[in-house]
Amino acid sequence: MIKRDFIANRGNLKGFIFVFFFRVSHFFQDHGALGKIVGLPFRVFYKIVFRWILCIDIPDSTKIGEGLMVFHGMGLVVHGNCKIGNNVVIRHNTTIGQKKANGAVPVIGNGVDIGAHSIILGDIEIGDNCVIGAGTFVDKNIPANCLVYGSPFVIKKLSNN
Amino acid sequence: MIKRDFIANRGNLKGFIFVFFFRVSHFFQDHGALGKIVGLPFRVFYKIVFRWILCIDIPDSTKIGEGLMVFHGMGLVVHGNCKIGNNVVIRHNTTIGQKKANGAVPVIGNGVDIGAHSIILGDIEIGDNCVIGAGTFVDKNIPANCLVYGSPFVIKKLSNN
Amino acid sequence: MIKRDFIANRGNLKGFIFVFFFRVSHFFQDHGALGKIVGLPFRVFYKIVFRWILCIDIPDSTKIGEGLMVFHGMGLVVHGNCKIGNNVVIRHNTTIGQKKANGAVPVIGNGVDIGAHSIILGDIEIGDNCVIGAGTFVDKNIPANCLVYGSPFVIKKLSNN
Repeated sequence: MIKRDFIANRGNLKGFIFVFFFRVSHFFQDHGALGKIVGLPFRVFYKIVFRWILCIDIPDSTKIGEGLMVFHGMGLVVHGNCKIGNNVVIRHNTTIGQKKANGAVPVIGNGVDIGAHSIILGDIEIGDNCVIGAGTFVDKNIPANCLVYGSPFVIKKLSNN
Repeated sequence: MIKRDFIANRGNLKGFIFVFFFRVSHFFQDHGALGKIVGLPFRVFYKIVFRWILCIDIPDSTKIGEGLMVFHGMGLVVHGNCKIGNNVVIRHNTTIGQKKANGAVPVIGNGVDIGAHSIILGDIEIGDNCVIGAGTFVDKNIPANCLVYGSPFVIKKLSNN
Repeated sequence: MIKRDFIANRGNLKGFIFVFFFRVSHFFQDHGALGKIVGLPFRVFYKIVFRWILCIDIPDSTKIGEGLMVFHGMGLVVHGNCKIGNNVVIRHNTTIGQKKANGAVPVIGNGVDIGAHSIILGDIEIGDNCVIGAGTFVDKNIPANCLVYGSPFVIKKLSNN
């Protein structure tokens, strides 16, 4: 998985470093009470350095498929209950989370490309290979292979997929 | 006041740490020339660590009531002349400030819940218990107990309050 | 040039520090293979401290005229191929870059004032002395001396210029 992440983030060193630390922290988080305890120093380091200082606030409980690309990691908040597919691109100043306190969070499909300054909220599903334009507010289900953009957003079928 | 802040930010350690340092820095700022001088090292530390590095750019001159919640503190800019009520929630990538250079700044009531990626600008007042949806641009007065969302924004009366 | 930057950023120490380091890093970047090699430690320092940690992600290859003002430098991404004129104001949580992968990037004229949370994308030109309102998404050419704001954006001629 790390290898796939490395290939995905070629030329994007900050992105790869983040994804690497996320994977290790997630490994500990995902291995029961023992993993959580043994990995505590690492997980605290991840939280403070990446989530607090570098402002890439993705909890290590988030389920993210291989080949995650994080471009210009900053101003980024993802809820820890989110499920994100393989080969997803996330950019800066983006939020993926709850619409209301204690509400459900988005499920992001494979190959989704999320533009900068996007806001994706609520109990929704973004289908495989969708492209979400920069600055789009999305709070409804999006079928696979669609382009979503504008405010309020419009949905267009992508023909190339 | 610190106690109220602590209760408000349970489970939100970064938020509490920020609010704590803000309160201390504001204490020095608010106690005349002597306070400003004695507190200078602390205020410089606050400015560099919180406003510059952690990107929670709230000057210590800002008047903020008790129980301030700062979720995912990052990308946050509040003008130093703002007045913010009690029990206000502020999220990431939000700006509260001037619409024009040297212009007036918003007054935020008690219990206001401000969504992420919001922009609140100008000589306006946000009434008590308002909820401002994520990504909303607000530049007009909002009466108390209203929900504001969308672009351009719409206002709905909240019935539960 | 540094003197002009200093005057432009009076009272904005963080902004001036950033612009100073950008200028030095750009100087090395702009002086052939020798400059790039001699300046490597400095350029790496600039990249890690300013682009990664402080979240002012402006590559030192960007061509920027004198008197650059960066207010509340954070959450800021500018593409390295951008050309930016003299006396331009850039604020926080703003992106100036490509609309599509490997696409062209904006050219920003002289005296342009860019509001916070703006998104300026694609093969476009922003004319001299334009004002771009906070939170505006711009992906079309804007003639000189115009105010652009709203979503979708409207263009108004500025009479004072």
